[in-house]
Amino acid sequence: MTTADPRTALAAALPDSELVTDPDVLASLSADDAEWAPAGRPLAALRATSTAEVAAAVAACADLGVAVVPRGAGTGLSGGANATDGCLVLDMSRMNRVLEIDEENLIAVVQPGVVNNDLKAAVAERGLWYPPDPASAPWSTIGGNVATNAGGLCCLKYGVTRDYVLGLQAVVGGPAGAYGTVVRLGRRTTKGVSGYDLAGLFVGSEGTLGVVTEITLRLRPALRDAPHTVVGAFDDLVTAGEAVALCTRRGLRPAALELLDRACLEAVEEWKHLGIGPEANALLLARLDAPGQAGLDEAEAVAAAFTDSGARWAERSTDATEAEALFEARRLAYPALERLGPVLTEDVCVPLSAVPEMLARTEEIGARHGVRIATIAHAGDGNLHPLLITAPGDDTARRAAQAAFEELLVAAVALGGTVTGEHGVGLLKRGGMRGELGPEVCAMQDALKLTLDPLGLFNPGKVTGDPR
Amino acid sequence: MTTADPRTALAAALPDSELVTDPDVLASLSADDAEWAPAGRPLAALRATSTAEVAAAVAACADLGVAVVPRGAGTGLSGGANATDGCLVLDMSRMNRVLEIDEENLIAVVQPGVVNNDLKAAVAERGLWYPPDPASAPWSTIGGNVATNAGGLCCLKYGVTRDYVLGLQAVVGGPAGAYGTVVRLGRRTTKGVSGYDLAGLFVGSEGTLGVVTEITLRLRPALRDAPHTVVGAFDDLVTAGEAVALCTRRGLRPAALELLDRACLEAVEEWKHLGIGPEANALLLARLDAPGQAGLDEAEAVAAAFTDSGARWAERSTDATEAEALFEARRLAYPALERLGPVLTEDVCVPLSAVPEMLARTEEIGARHGVRIATIAHAGDGNLHPLLITAPGDDTARRAAQAAFEELLVAAVALGGTVTGEHGVGLLKRGGMRGELGPEVCAMQDALKLTLDPLGLFNPGKVTGDPR
Repeated sequence: MTTADPRTALAAALPDSELVTDPDVLASLSADDAEWAPAGRPLAALRATSTAEVAAAVAACADLGVAVVPRGAGTGLSGGANATDGCLVLDMSRMNRVLEIDEENLIAVVQPGVVNNDLKAAVAERGLWYPPDPASAPWSTIGGNVATNAGGLCCLKYGVTRDYVLGLQAVVGGPAGAYGTVVRLGRRTTKGVSGYDLAGLFVGSEGTLGVVTEITLRLRPALRDAPHTVVGAFDDLVTAGEAVALCTRRGLRPAALELLDRACLEAVEEWKHLGIGPEANALLLARLDAPGQAGLDEAEAVAAAFTDSGARWAERSTDATEAEALFEARRLAYPALERLGPVLTEDVCVPLSAVPEMLARTEEIGARHGVRIATIAHAGDGNLHPLLITAPGDDTARRAAQAAFEELLVAAVALGGTVTGEHGVGLLKRGGMRGELGPEVCAMQDALKLTLDPLGLFNPGKVTGDPR
Repeated sequence: MTTADPRTALAAALPDSELVTDPDVLASLSADDAEWAPAGRPLAALRATSTAEVAAAVAACADLGVAVVPRGAGTGLSGGANATDGCLVLDMSRMNRVLEIDEENLIAVVQPGVVNNDLKAAVAERGLWYPPDPASAPWSTIGGNVATNAGGLCCLKYGVTRDYVLGLQAVVGGPAGAYGTVVRLGRRTTKGVSGYDLAGLFVGSEGTLGVVTEITLRLRPALRDAPHTVVGAFDDLVTAGEAVALCTRRGLRPAALELLDRACLEAVEEWKHLGIGPEANALLLARLDAPGQAGLDEAEAVAAAFTDSGARWAERSTDATEAEALFEARRLAYPALERLGPVLTEDVCVPLSAVPEMLARTEEIGARHGVRIATIAHAGDGNLHPLLITAPGDDTARRAAQAAFEELLVAAVALGGTVTGEHGVGLLKRGGMRGELGPEVCAMQDALKLTLDPLGLFNPGKVTGDPR
């Protein structure tokens, strides 16, 4: 008698599931968008269609000692969805149904594979709004957004994914029971303090504590008035950063306050021909959505703050098409730059007052290492995305970029910031996280992981590394 | 040789701290405002003045096997701050300094003993606002608010305490190191996903995972315009509940939407003579704070929703003094009712659409048990506070009230709600919590408690009970 190989054993344990084993397909499911994060070779992948199927898969994997790596659309930027050798990739993208839209309670219940923009469209039909809007919203899934606690453009005024997650259904193991146990965390009410906030703990845990199979989300009424857009052009990034700080000091609350540099604008224009010329070295885009006259007043106040900070020009856009093109350029900046070569994406977040200094240090670090850095930023949140671009196949440039990447993390922490504002720790930020949090807090993180996943089955190596 | 008694040993281990041992003072520090929750007899109390003193006390208590029960102002309503026999009560109310108000980053850093309204006043001087406003805000501390994830009136639009806590300093034990280790959880930036959300986990954990010694809070710019108040008078509670539901369906977002019944209004008037007669069996109070004309429009729309739902009358208050008196009556309702006898306070929260049904069931349960129930509610959040009032010393009435109390919890969970919206589990809601969460999730809760507090030193018996 011979022991069955693990793949055969897994298939035998899951007679009702179709396992993906084609090497090309497996490869396509083995990594997210973090170009430089290492990816392993999975045993197989399962395109899950129900919570019951996920539960059965988790139970079988626990029996066989096979790790479970969940993934959504694979748009992550930290390697959080990258396969480990011999794992089962659990592709959640086919669990993509909006299960319920409850207008009376401003709630949606969704499967994790629902694409962010699809949810937005579905609730908009009922006069409702799901605000979190990562730039990946046309492709990324709510499950992935939950895994990384995704942010986006409107966080400044409307918060991040965690602020909208009321409850979760998850397949877990450990203290709750055998691996494959299905639990409901959180609640369906607007307030609730019944026990520790486990739903909140799962948000941002990148699939390392269990597999999320259903999400109960808070919605808002749709905005009644169209928003206003203000554009400011600046001679340099640091001056633009100072304009952001002035907006804060003046008590202005834009719904979005985005920064793009010349490199981003050029890359988008070259690709999409939106007709947005790089008229300056840095552009600030503000969206103001206070109702009625207050929105107009706010727009004028933001334009004044831009001018007072030394903008070359600043104006409220009165052309809705132009305004939309500008925000479209913002959303397309990342894929546009990716066309130029492998991109290493930073995601530091610093206190608002440190934005000008962080932008200055970014330029200095890029220049010193000879690394081309394009910068987009959720500037109003202090969340900066320096994009480190290298020519394909240039190993020297790649090493320089990696050195600059690590220095940017150290600089952000030194300014009172964090190594990741919204992309997650994944594989790329594990060292940065340890430096930011220190050994005592990392020991608490490790202990939580070990407690809730004693077998180390769920997305091993991500966030905490492997604490065992 | 004799072993020193524990009190002497504790005093010897803390030579720089003055321990409170006077029985009367100890008794006054041994319970919160939850009339019917059992309180033990502490060994001593310590009025802490610094993080270092808290750390030393926790370390000494760990050595001696003495439990640590932290408390703020003692305004809690679930027994979360009640002493256990032989514990050290850690009174945090003297650590009451606002350490920093950072206008550039919209942040305040405070010690846990700062009173909520004192913080509001301090930041208001800089044009800033700290929104969470439990009715206890004139007395309760930020540390206590963090312990229970306190809500209040303005949660509907502005969220609860957790939404404002960016970071914490805490004295912990367990995985982070020896008991008495000081850690910083969370961050100072508006966004951040560097590791599991430990700061969020500590919020609402009622001192069972460690002692919070400093809190970094998010602030907002002060509102520019004075808010509008709309009052609606209803013949019965259920109709008022339907008016709340209609406001939601019409996409209205009041900053507060409060319900008071006749019993509350009468009790306040009898005590304070604010000149607010009980003109109806139920009153709805709405506060609208959209800027400029939008606020007026919103106020008129809410008044219309009240009328359309069957209000006897509804109007926008044009008299600021009258409007303030109405909200003052809301804040005073609880202490006013306490004057009439021991009050057992409910804190259920149900989906908004279930508010009318929960109000109906409350009336039915009160009538069936012969219990006098007054109701105040953050109606717009679905967070209801039925107040069960008994005559002092009437044991039969007390048993009836306790039976009604438990039935109300079951009814709330049956309607998709939670047993505690904002007061916390403490001692009174432990059974209710177990019923709501189920054994699997409770096992996860227990495991987290055991992991982060393996000695069971921190506020034992609260929230999870004693999982060891």
